Amino acid sequence: MKVGLDVGGTKTDAVALDAAGAIIGRVRLPTGWGPDAVTQTILDAVHAVAADAGADPGEVGSVGVGIPGQVQPGSGRVVHAVNLGVERLDLAAALTPRLGVPVRLENDVKAAALGAYALHAAEGRAPESMAYLNVGTGIAAGIVSRGMLWRGARGTAGEVGHISVDPNGPLCRCGQRGCIEAFAGGGAIAERWARRGALPVRDVFDAADAGDASALQLRAGLARGVAAAIRVLVLTADVDIVVLGGGVTALGERLMTDVAAELTASAEASPFMRSLRLGERVEFLPPGSPAAALGAALVGAGETEHDAEEALAHG
Amino acid sequence: MKVGLDVGGTKTDAVALDAAGAIIGRVRLPTGWGPDAVTQTILDAVHAVAADAGADPGEVGSVGVGIPGQVQPGSGRVVHAVNLGVERLDLAAALTPRLGVPVRLENDVKAAALGAYALHAAEGRAPESMAYLNVGTGIAAGIVSRGMLWRGARGTAGEVGHISVDPNGPLCRCGQRGCIEAFAGGGAIAERWARRGALPVRDVFDAADAGDASALQLRAGLARGVAAAIRVLVLTADVDIVVLGGGVTALGERLMTDVAAELTASAEASPFMRSLRLGERVEFLPPGSPAAALGAALVGAGETEHDAEEALAHG
Repeated sequence: MKVGLDVGGTKTDAVALDAAGAIIGRVRLPTGWGPDAVTQTILDAVHAVAADAGADPGEVGSVGVGIPGQVQPGSGRVVHAVNLGVERLDLAAALTPRLGVPVRLENDVKAAALGAYALHAAEGRAPESMAYLNVGTGIAAGIVSRGMLWRGARGTAGEVGHISVDPNGPLCRCGQRGCIEAFAGGGAIAERWARRGALPVRDVFDAADAGDASALQLRAGLARGVAAAIRVLVLTADVDIVVLGGGVTALGERLMTDVAAELTASAEASPFMRSLRLGERVEFLPPGSPAAALGAALVGAGETEHDAEEALAHG
Repeated sequence: MKVGLDVGGTKTDAVALDAAGAIIGRVRLPTGWGPDAVTQTILDAVHAVAADAGADPGEVGSVGVGIPGQVQPGSGRVVHAVNLGVERLDLAAALTPRLGVPVRLENDVKAAALGAYALHAAEGRAPESMAYLNVGTGIAAGIVSRGMLWRGARGTAGEVGHISVDPNGPLCRCGQRGCIEAFAGGGAIAERWARRGALPVRDVFDAADAGDASALQLRAGLARGVAAAIRVLVLTADVDIVVLGGGVTALGERLMTDVAAELTASAEASPFMRSLRLGERVEFLPPGSPAAALGAALVGAGETEHDAEEALAHG
């Protein structure tokens, strides 16, 4: 049995997979704050999801953890997982002795990309390549080709959030102007909206519907940033499909309508863009999708360098 | 013996490789205009480069052709090779019976990417991944990882020229505003400069040196577009190195100084961009480099992971 976990800022989603890769157990637990509590949450979630699958913890053969922050490839360490109160944590070292099985880490967005691809494959519609674009507090993507993550040379593959698409755009927290994330990241929008609320991006949409000028501008920027990220992913990596997920996509149709309008506008201006049929290549990850935890389980199962080379050789 | 050709708008560069992948012959011929003349140029070049290598045409085991325009993967056909007066040409069908060996086609920028990677590998410094950014009449890139081209799903991998980086930027021939190519493509610059000259981009640089305001603006846009393309390639595909080539790079240090200044400016504004050390990851393809013809020979030899690695190991 493989276990995969998506450790989020508020909750941890865990799935258990049988030998064929089918999900046979799933639990969600609140995530603790800080290194020790995060480690404990993961241990608790592994035991709970094994129980949910009707299995003994001893039947867990591997554990994969998707986690926000920078994961140094192959290291088992995460740094700058600020949402979790973790500056640096060697999770593999903390977990492996207590679980007695290999523990692999991956950045949560990259894990979700792998999982979104696996969900397509399970439905018999595996694309040649796919990008998963996470529209949450920040903006980042994971690129998967033939089931394998494109990890890149130095860990910046898919960091499309910090591509500037407007020299006169809003200042990004990264220091540049007009980054995709400065337009479309939930954190940047909440900061610029500056009215307190539990769901600032939803509040922006509601205020825009009511005609608020500042909200209309923020809402337009969100669609513009997401559309720009989709174009960058297709024009650089030529992925078949872009799957949108992350907290901001809870807006569902309201967001999709705006993004589709942006893509239509560039298709109307440009025969080249029209030929790409971007509107038909964008999908939403369904709410509550287990993609990130599922992808983490696949990382944990030993996604090897050799496999990656094979994927490239046939790409 | 493998033969590779780079069919350019004015000349065709051909190389012959021995079994170990070393270049043992090289010729350059003027390229004919239109489908029949292009086909004849290729036949002439194959014979001439075999002779230059001291070999008989019968010793040619495979032919790879790098050609501008859209090459449908695996088809042997090229469409929209406008620089060559070719709207559509099934080169493999035209050449294979007359050469008696397999003929493979690849887009010239993608072939150059493969060749630039092979040249690095031959010097014992093969990066994990590399992008070749062609700054010519238009702007496009090829991405290579471990010796293999990233071809993408539908033939738009590396089409970074049509990513818009400024909604108020110049109109691109593709119909969008502020595309990287509208800022940095030699064709777009020549059109906006609008003073007749054999070397319009060089004229722009000279006029900018003399203080011409319009030339200064075009020159700044060129550097800005090239720097944006470099950032897109690193932030999306996370390539180790970006190699610049193409007609506009004949400007050499004059261009590099401007591009380096652009990269420095974003690194000064942004700790994140600074951490990428982009300035250290950009190289020029040397003038007269056989990269494109060499890369075409590798495509022609039946590019597989294994073959490419062998060619590289011995090259």
